[in-house]
Amino acid sequence: MAQQERAIRTRRAVLDAAAAVFAERGYAAATVAEILSRAKVTKGALYFHFDSKASLARGVLAAQAGIEHHVPRELKLQEWVDAGMTLAARLPGEPLLLAGVRLAVDLQGRDVFGGVWPAWTQRTADFLEEAKRRGEVLPHVVPETTAHLFLGAWIGVQFVSQAVAGWADLERRMADLFEHVLPAIATPAVLARLDTAPDRGSRVIAEAVSEAVSMSVSEAVPVTAVAAGGG
Amino acid sequence: MAQQERAIRTRRAVLDAAAAVFAERGYAAATVAEILSRAKVTKGALYFHFDSKASLARGVLAAQAGIEHHVPRELKLQEWVDAGMTLAARLPGEPLLLAGVRLAVDLQGRDVFGGVWPAWTQRTADFLEEAKRRGEVLPHVVPETTAHLFLGAWIGVQFVSQAVAGWADLERRMADLFEHVLPAIATPAVLARLDTAPDRGSRVIAEAVSEAVSMSVSEAVPVTAVAAGGG
Repeated sequence: MAQQERAIRTRRAVLDAAAAVFAERGYAAATVAEILSRAKVTKGALYFHFDSKASLARGVLAAQAGIEHHVPRELKLQEWVDAGMTLAARLPGEPLLLAGVRLAVDLQGRDVFGGVWPAWTQRTADFLEEAKRRGEVLPHVVPETTAHLFLGAWIGVQFVSQAVAGWADLERRMADLFEHVLPAIATPAVLARLDTAPDRGSRVIAEAVSEAVSMSVSEAVPVTAVAAGGG
Repeated sequence: MAQQERAIRTRRAVLDAAAAVFAERGYAAATVAEILSRAKVTKGALYFHFDSKASLARGVLAAQAGIEHHVPRELKLQEWVDAGMTLAARLPGEPLLLAGVRLAVDLQGRDVFGGVWPAWTQRTADFLEEAKRRGEVLPHVVPETTAHLFLGAWIGVQFVSQAVAGWADLERRMADLFEHVLPAIATPAVLARLDTAPDRGSRVIAEAVSEAVSMSVSEAVPVTAVAAGGG
C-alpha cells in the first residue's frame, strides 16, 4: 500500500475513534488516550494528524461536510429536504454524525474547537437562496432568517428524539419539522410537489448508492479487497 | 402575620432560591446547602416544605404552570401565540422560568425529579384542539403532532438564543418560530389576523397587569406594604 494511502487510512481510523468517544462521552470527558486505544494506531501516528483533543474535535466537525448523499433534483427545495432527511436517516447509526451533533451543542467546548452553527446555517441559507432565485420560495421569505430558525428547531427536534426514543423516531420528527415549516416558505405549486415522507431519507440514500455504483462500476475495487489490505 | 401566610412566603422564598441555584448550576451541581443559604430560612423551614433536592426541583417545575399572563382573545391561536411570546419576554429576567427551562432539558435529572415535556406538550395540544373546534385550524392538522414538533423546536430555539445572545434575541426568534409554523396550521383568514410581532409578549404582559390592577383596585394592598411586612 502506498504511503499516502496508508496515511489517509490512519487519519480515518483516528477520526472514527475520536467520533465514537466524543459521541459517547462528550468533549470534556473524552481523552486522547481513549481515542488512541480505540484507533489502534501509534501515538506518533495520531499526533502526526491531530496535535490535540481540540484538533480532533475540529477534524470530526470538518468531516461532517463531506458525507452527504447529494442527488440533484428539479426542485432545489427538494434537495434541501433530502439533505435533512438523509441526515435524519443516517444519524442514529453513524458515530461521526452523532459526534458532530454532540460537539455542536457543547457550549463550553465551542470556545476551544470552534462552532459549526454558522456553517450549518449558511448551508441552509444557500439552498433557500438558490430556491428563491428559481421562484420556488414565497417572495417575503428571508433565507437567512429561515436558516437561523431551522438550525434552532433542528437542534431541539434531534435533542427531544434522542431523549425520548434514542433517535428511533428522528425521521418522523424531521418529516414533521419540514411539513410544519415548508408551507411558510414554498410557493403553493412547489409545496404540493415536495416529498417529505419519513422514509424519504432512506430512499434517497438507496438511490445515491445505486447511482454511485453504476457510475464507478468499471473502476470499482471490491470492498473485500480494500478491507483485506488494511493495516 | 398569620401562620399560613408566613408558610406561603417561606415556601416562595425557598422556591426562588432553588430556582436561582438550579438556573445557574444545573441540577447535578446544585446543593440544598446553597439553596438554604440563599433562601435565608431555617433548615427546618426548608425541609418542612421540600424534603429533598429532587422535591425542590419538582416544586420549581410545578411553579411554572401558575405564572402565565392570560388575556382571553377572540382567536384561540392568538392565545397560544400570546402564551409563547409572554414566556419569551419574561424568561431572560425570571430565575423561576430559567430554572424550568434548564431542568426541563436535564436528561439525567429527569429520572430523579420527573419530566415536564408531557405537560408542556399537552398545554399546546389543548390550545390547538380548542382552536380546531372553533375552525381556526386547517382540517389536516393533528394537534398532538404539532404540539410535539413545537416542543422540540422551542427547546432548540431557546437553546440557540441562550448560546449566541444570552437570550437577548429570544423574542425575535420566538416570533420567527411562530411565523414559520403558523402557515402550516392556521386557516388563511385566521393567519392574516394573528399578531406575532417580537414585542407581542411585552404588550400582552402590560395589558394583563393593567387589567389585574383595575380588577383588584378596591382590595389592593400596596406593594410597598407587602414588601415591608415580609420576614
